[in-house]
Amino acid sequence: MIRVTVWNENIHDKEDGVRAVYPLGLHGTIAEFLGKLEGVQVRTATLDQPDCGLPESVLEETDVLIWWGHVAHDRVPDELAQRIVERVNRGMGFIGLHSAHMSKPLRKLLGTSCTLRWRDGEFERLWCTAPGHPIAQGLPPAFTLEQEEMYGEFFDIPQPETVVFTGWFRGGEVFRSGCCWTCGYGRVFYFQPGHETNGSFHNPYVQQIIGNAVRWAAPTARRNGLDCLFAQKSAEELTAQGEEVPAF
Amino acid sequence: MIRVTVWNENIHDKEDGVRAVYPLGLHGTIAEFLGKLEGVQVRTATLDQPDCGLPESVLEETDVLIWWGHVAHDRVPDELAQRIVERVNRGMGFIGLHSAHMSKPLRKLLGTSCTLRWRDGEFERLWCTAPGHPIAQGLPPAFTLEQEEMYGEFFDIPQPETVVFTGWFRGGEVFRSGCCWTCGYGRVFYFQPGHETNGSFHNPYVQQIIGNAVRWAAPTARRNGLDCLFAQKSAEELTAQGEEVPAF
Amino acid sequence: MIRVTVWNENIHDKEDGVRAVYPLGLHGTIAEFLGKLEGVQVRTATLDQPDCGLPESVLEETDVLIWWGHVAHDRVPDELAQRIVERVNRGMGFIGLHSAHMSKPLRKLLGTSCTLRWRDGEFERLWCTAPGHPIAQGLPPAFTLEQEEMYGEFFDIPQPETVVFTGWFRGGEVFRSGCCWTCGYGRVFYFQPGHETNGSFHNPYVQQIIGNAVRWAAPTARRNGLDCLFAQKSAEELTAQGEEVPAF
Amino acid sequence: MIRVTVWNENIHDKEDGVRAVYPLGLHGTIAEFLGKLEGVQVRTATLDQPDCGLPESVLEETDVLIWWGHVAHDRVPDELAQRIVERVNRGMGFIGLHSAHMSKPLRKLLGTSCTLRWRDGEFERLWCTAPGHPIAQGLPPAFTLEQEEMYGEFFDIPQPETVVFTGWFRGGEVFRSGCCWTCGYGRVFYFQPGHETNGSFHNPYVQQIIGNAVRWAAPTARRNGLDCLFAQKSAEELTAQGEEVPAF
Repeated sequence: MIRVTVWNENIHDKEDGVRAVYPLGLHGTIAEFLGKLEGVQVRTATLDQPDCGLPESVLEETDVLIWWGHVAHDRVPDELAQRIVERVNRGMGFIGLHSAHMSKPLRKLLGTSCTLRWRDGEFERLWCTAPGHPIAQGLPPAFTLEQEEMYGEFFDIPQPETVVFTGWFRGGEVFRSGCCWTCGYGRVFYFQPGHETNGSFHNPYVQQIIGNAVRWAAPTARRNGLDCLFAQKSAEELTAQGEEVPAF
Repeated sequence: MIRVTVWNENIHDKEDGVRAVYPLGLHGTIAEFLGKLEGVQVRTATLDQPDCGLPESVLEETDVLIWWGHVAHDRVPDELAQRIVERVNRGMGFIGLHSAHMSKPLRKLLGTSCTLRWRDGEFERLWCTAPGHPIAQGLPPAFTLEQEEMYGEFFDIPQPETVVFTGWFRGGEVFRSGCCWTCGYGRVFYFQPGHETNGSFHNPYVQQIIGNAVRWAAPTARRNGLDCLFAQKSAEELTAQGEEVPAF
Repeated sequence: MIRVTVWNENIHDKEDGVRAVYPLGLHGTIAEFLGKLEGVQVRTATLDQPDCGLPESVLEETDVLIWWGHVAHDRVPDELAQRIVERVNRGMGFIGLHSAHMSKPLRKLLGTSCTLRWRDGEFERLWCTAPGHPIAQGLPPAFTLEQEEMYGEFFDIPQPETVVFTGWFRGGEVFRSGCCWTCGYGRVFYFQPGHETNGSFHNPYVQQIIGNAVRWAAPTARRNGLDCLFAQKSAEELTAQGEEVPAF
Repeated sequence: MIRVTVWNENIHDKEDGVRAVYPLGLHGTIAEFLGKLEGVQVRTATLDQPDCGLPESVLEETDVLIWWGHVAHDRVPDELAQRIVERVNRGMGFIGLHSAHMSKPLRKLLGTSCTLRWRDGEFERLWCTAPGHPIAQGLPPAFTLEQEEMYGEFFDIPQPETVVFTGWFRGGEVFRSGCCWTCGYGRVFYFQPGHETNGSFHNPYVQQIIGNAVRWAAPTARRNGLDCLFAQKSAEELTAQGEEVPAF
């Protein structure tokens, strides 16, 4: 069972224009379609909850954290962002959606500004540039979104390990729209579509991608801490004494 | 001309045991051998100087920043570490040496804990695992260091773009001892040897590697800021009007 | 169900020394432990069979091809090696074991000589250098093999996407012992242990790794051909006409 | 001094339409602008010359081989293609231009079909997706080509180490237009523009890119052979005896 927590700052969601598109809120919509997947168990968390919805007890029970934020990045405490980063370094998966590119957790994970070129209301076609990747499973060579926010290069990120999707915008721009990284034990995926007024989370291909990403990002190993280990005995000494090299 | 700043916390350097090995200080020794390279201009900076030796004016004139720190990582202000990260994102090269793995700038750049397994006083043999890489230029297949601090896996870093050197320790451990990343516009190299009492910076191969890394990390492009750009006019509109897409 | 074909040149397997270690043959042993995995279905194929054991009908029903060869690489027809490469480009997984580094399929897939430094009868300790990777699932930080053939750097391969395991040899060498690549739609894993007289395929960690690799390499997408596609209608025209961009 | 050989199949170059665009031939034009670079020495070679213009003596004196071919890929002997691959594995740089995606040397180097989606006569805008990379030095965020052959995804290549340029086509497609790989000791760059009737090699940005690529691909190390090395003495024995680990 993969335990997913969908986090949303839940602010735009109260505007009429957004409520019309996402009556359940962005988090509610995402949780709804993920909740239908076999072997996936979903909860939501929002900024307006105690501890921003992410007390240690929730993070402790989260395998993959999905993040949507836009206007309130600054209201997420640095300390919470740092705890999320450490959770990822220890194995938790992280999926940043759309304007989460400027969120504290993603920027701390990637170590870059994550800035980009942008403009509202563009026609986008997403091309699959890594069709054999697990996140591309079941996707066609390309699919279109009638209206999305244009995010264009240069996207200030470290070299992704894989660019699964590349966005083409009718206005003339391109974007690395689906990017993968390994950050310690954890896997991180960033996906560009998902502007609050554009309804992309109702798109079946977008839903398929996020579902695939959840399975891909689910941890296959965890570590408890993030400290250095003083290896008093060398590996050779341990082996000679029939002991295992300790994990840390 | 590549302008290098060698930063050192300059604390161990005042201990007798270290002074015996590095009478010029670690920074002085590194600056000395780099200063002999054609087209390279070197200055040093230390934690005990005003602004930790790195006021904006110095960073502004630095193409590649070399970092050695160990016991005083915490005395480097977060704000300075963040300014260094942003400089790297904007193009400056960064070379972290040895115990700089736990330094604030490197950890912020990489987004991981950079923790590892360690033990003092080991025999190390460094194997070149990317002999065609510019940082390996002039190096033999392997070279040895009689005494170095063992740093062993798992090294909690994001997947390096290239592992140029892999360390073998007689005690039984291995380490990704020379690692490359691109962090925005800037290039980052981490190199494991360089314990304060072991004299590795006098080793000609180590000197060759650091010199090569300086040339490799020297910026080939810079950006002024790190903001997002609102692209009011699309690229297609700009092209139609004979204008260039703006940089940002 | 993942359909695995374990291919072996099946020559050493007839020598007394090898038969003592692998009474079922290398292929039989590998097939035996893989066959116990849930959702995995295994068959074997050997060089001495018609069509080298790999007629189109077998390849057609293979999701992951495992390869062990040593003294008879040249007896594998170029044309068969090329068909395997194309199968991988079209989605089939490929796992090369030990001396398969010099096999025709692997060398054609990687485009390099795959040469290395070697010596028999060494003590090896394998360190996990990517513990969060699916192939490392369930593995400890390090494990040992009392006797293995030393394969040492420089290993002439393209930059691996991930080095999951790094080998330490008591004689002083290191090796990228578990390497991953994406080759078109298909995933490729190379794993260094597995000398015919050393019994490594009886080691539970080695078995775990190969089982993990099978799951990792199993295709998540396939393509039928490998031809270029003349896109008479542009993607924009297709979209305007309500048509999908064709796969190819 | 970087010694460049510009190879061209030199067939289209005799057609009137192409001669009008490239009176010197494609090879002549490329050689002309590269020949103006400081520290670069250029010669040309064509398919119609003895040994296809590439006898061992020419390859021996080549640091970077540039390749343009289209209709006569099959006339390049397999044996020559293999020798080029081995030269690259041993350190020589290789730059494949435009329709060289289907050339024997590039396909053998990459191990994939290098197939793609295509259409003539498109407007292309190339975005720089790795502005800090040496091959992007001096380039703007984007530049346009009024007429180029559309090459669109999926491009069947192994994961590039860096995608320096991403192409946007007005017809709706995207392409990884400038890709880097390390293939053994050698560096490989593929660049998509350069259709024989479109004049892109007269574009100053295209010229800048190819010039940059030449400097980037120039070898920093070479090896003489590509054989395995039997390491009779272990590295530890060699060190104990004051000997160096042999290169191979």
